[in-house]
Amino acid sequence: MRMRDVGSDLADTLFSSLREASLDPPGVTRASYGAGERAAHAILCAAAQRLNLEISVDPIGTLFMTLPGADRGAPPVLIGSHLDAVPHGGNFDGAAGVVMGLALIARLLAEGRRLRRDLVIIGIRAEEMIWFPMLYLGSRAAFGLLPKDAPDRLLRSDSGRSLACHMAEQGFDPDFIRAGRRSLTPDQIHCFIEPHIEQGPVLVAQHIPVAVVTGIRGSIRYRACQATGEWGHAGAVPRRSRRDAVLAVAALAHALEDFWDCCEAAGRDLVLTMGECFTDPLLQGITKIPGAVRFSLDIRSEDPAVLAEAETLLGYQARLIAAARGVQIDYGPVLPVSPAPMDGRLRATLRKGAAKVGIAFQEMASGAGHDALTFAGLGIPTAMLFIRNTGGSHNPAEAMAMEDFTAALEVLLAAIEEIAA
Amino acid sequence: MRMRDVGSDLADTLFSSLREASLDPPGVTRASYGAGERAAHAILCAAAQRLNLEISVDPIGTLFMTLPGADRGAPPVLIGSHLDAVPHGGNFDGAAGVVMGLALIARLLAEGRRLRRDLVIIGIRAEEMIWFPMLYLGSRAAFGLLPKDAPDRLLRSDSGRSLACHMAEQGFDPDFIRAGRRSLTPDQIHCFIEPHIEQGPVLVAQHIPVAVVTGIRGSIRYRACQATGEWGHAGAVPRRSRRDAVLAVAALAHALEDFWDCCEAAGRDLVLTMGECFTDPLLQGITKIPGAVRFSLDIRSEDPAVLAEAETLLGYQARLIAAARGVQIDYGPVLPVSPAPMDGRLRATLRKGAAKVGIAFQEMASGAGHDALTFAGLGIPTAMLFIRNTGGSHNPAEAMAMEDFTAALEVLLAAIEEIAA
Repeated sequence: MRMRDVGSDLADTLFSSLREASLDPPGVTRASYGAGERAAHAILCAAAQRLNLEISVDPIGTLFMTLPGADRGAPPVLIGSHLDAVPHGGNFDGAAGVVMGLALIARLLAEGRRLRRDLVIIGIRAEEMIWFPMLYLGSRAAFGLLPKDAPDRLLRSDSGRSLACHMAEQGFDPDFIRAGRRSLTPDQIHCFIEPHIEQGPVLVAQHIPVAVVTGIRGSIRYRACQATGEWGHAGAVPRRSRRDAVLAVAALAHALEDFWDCCEAAGRDLVLTMGECFTDPLLQGITKIPGAVRFSLDIRSEDPAVLAEAETLLGYQARLIAAARGVQIDYGPVLPVSPAPMDGRLRATLRKGAAKVGIAFQEMASGAGHDALTFAGLGIPTAMLFIRNTGGSHNPAEAMAMEDFTAALEVLLAAIEEIAA
Repeated sequence: MRMRDVGSDLADTLFSSLREASLDPPGVTRASYGAGERAAHAILCAAAQRLNLEISVDPIGTLFMTLPGADRGAPPVLIGSHLDAVPHGGNFDGAAGVVMGLALIARLLAEGRRLRRDLVIIGIRAEEMIWFPMLYLGSRAAFGLLPKDAPDRLLRSDSGRSLACHMAEQGFDPDFIRAGRRSLTPDQIHCFIEPHIEQGPVLVAQHIPVAVVTGIRGSIRYRACQATGEWGHAGAVPRRSRRDAVLAVAALAHALEDFWDCCEAAGRDLVLTMGECFTDPLLQGITKIPGAVRFSLDIRSEDPAVLAEAETLLGYQARLIAAARGVQIDYGPVLPVSPAPMDGRLRATLRKGAAKVGIAFQEMASGAGHDALTFAGLGIPTAMLFIRNTGGSHNPAEAMAMEDFTAALEVLLAAIEEIAA
């Protein structure tokens, strides 16, 4: 039934066009400042033209599609997400948020509803870090937050060529970044809403189509941890003389799981991952006590206090393991990202909207980072709406049902007047 | 003082000759059925000729150097070890046992002592498994225990050429193995004693020059274990939906350490090693929940009951981890080696000998395997005498002090009459 509204019909068409234009079996590929991303921007831009929206593109390629509001001087409501995608990824990660904005406008126009504020649908560039090693490149560039040498220093993973080179090739201007200019100003934005597919299995497991996001988890991330013990004979060295790096890292993992248990019992948000863990392939042996292990740590929480406690625990465990096992643990440099709580009033408005149209929803943290983090970090009232999605994301199995997209659209429609008030 | 006896002087000379003949900086190299091993056999053989011993070499190159006893019909006492060495290894691993035998004879002759039984010093071939993938190749071949296709199937790691080829090149006869013949018969051997450097740090730590070995640890060894969970997003997947292979393997390691604690508390012998442990280099990522880990397990004990319990624990842990974590643990094929207890009477005789000459000793298990395992496995009364050694073995830092060699020689001299009775 819901499938027959103009918003969902438009979305359906746009998703088909996006898939076709960036197909790279299995899945789609839309490189940051590459051909797939360009095609996606062109498709959204053409749809905005058909809706008679005001269209502008800033010097770094950010796409703004504006539905004028009653008070054109009031700071606008921004809705959108990114249009790039990982290699052989899914069609909805990022794109669903921009398409949702246009579908919302199609419904508002069809129903003759006019908002108080301008509604700006934003197509952001370069969010997927797999292309350039920079968090939230596109949204941070639009706010003038990138290092000035970024265009010349950042190389794209597939081509080995610089961001400047790829920007210029697409007709954009790397000098915008080099000069520290910006096209977005925090105090000229009323609020930002990013609809996005959920990248985990929570909504599928709960049989719920949408979620109002409570906050984006911050993280402490260690790319290059090292445990250094001593190589030895697996049979001839007694336990008290061993400095076994594998058992030391296993003990660390165990201590971190104990901490996770404690946090869970107290209802405190946490996920942690040792994504890489390996003995030295040149020195390892089945009959050798392992003298070295390299590993990574990624620890995330909505709660900065949990991250601070985790950091303290890591230090304590390193000292404990050194004393008890003679194994040195060096975590290497840490990359910290602060948690970004979503705006309380926006969350309440979205919950109210969902209740009004009778759409089941839940509240949950976002474990993945998003452009919303850039906006929230600047003090802009920010919210995210998650759409149920099977198969995870960043892979071709990613699958969002149009029914769930429509459910999210109905929530947004029910809330948009209050959001734009 | 002890350095000035004829036995130690001979040993000193032999070690120098051995080092010179097989020098391959850093360390020495004596490939099984290669140039270094041949040189070592020649040096020992020449020394035996100077001592007027009866010398024979079997068709596979095992060297027998016999000091006749009073009763030439009685089964002889065998003393010896292997003469090959790992690439860039130490000078004493193996060789010390053969040299010890000749030093013992030099002392017996100098002191005019005649034993009841023949004393046969044996130079065994091909013990170091790094050259050919076969446990105790030389000693098992002498007893006719090798598979008949071994000469043609086993390839040497450095050359890629077959055992048959290398044997023939050294003037020996692979047909001896192919035909299942033997040069040693268990019931024609009174007992076997293998002096050997300790390959672990125990005697150094205890400031004790020699040890009487209680037994050679058996082992269960799994070369190719695999933990299979599910790859996922490190931030977006909540704990209950995770199937993290690294945390599963860490939990297994923790359970094995608990078992180790229990065994230690009960005074039961055990060492265990996860020598290799690695996430999939092609799929791993810092922000990915690890879906697969490969690892190895090497579990050793003198006590077959401990090994059996460890095997039971592994099965239980695999079921527990599958149920609790959704991660499948597959241990792959197991290579079991039974423990070999050393002969109680020989041990008592050696202890008595040490006490008689006032040499400090301790009793300890051998964590590494030795040719003594072949003899003990055939029911031949077998003993090992460990000599203190710093720097471990299988590396150029291996270092045995001549004072410690002499201490072991004195123990053997004090015990040899009773051993040969």
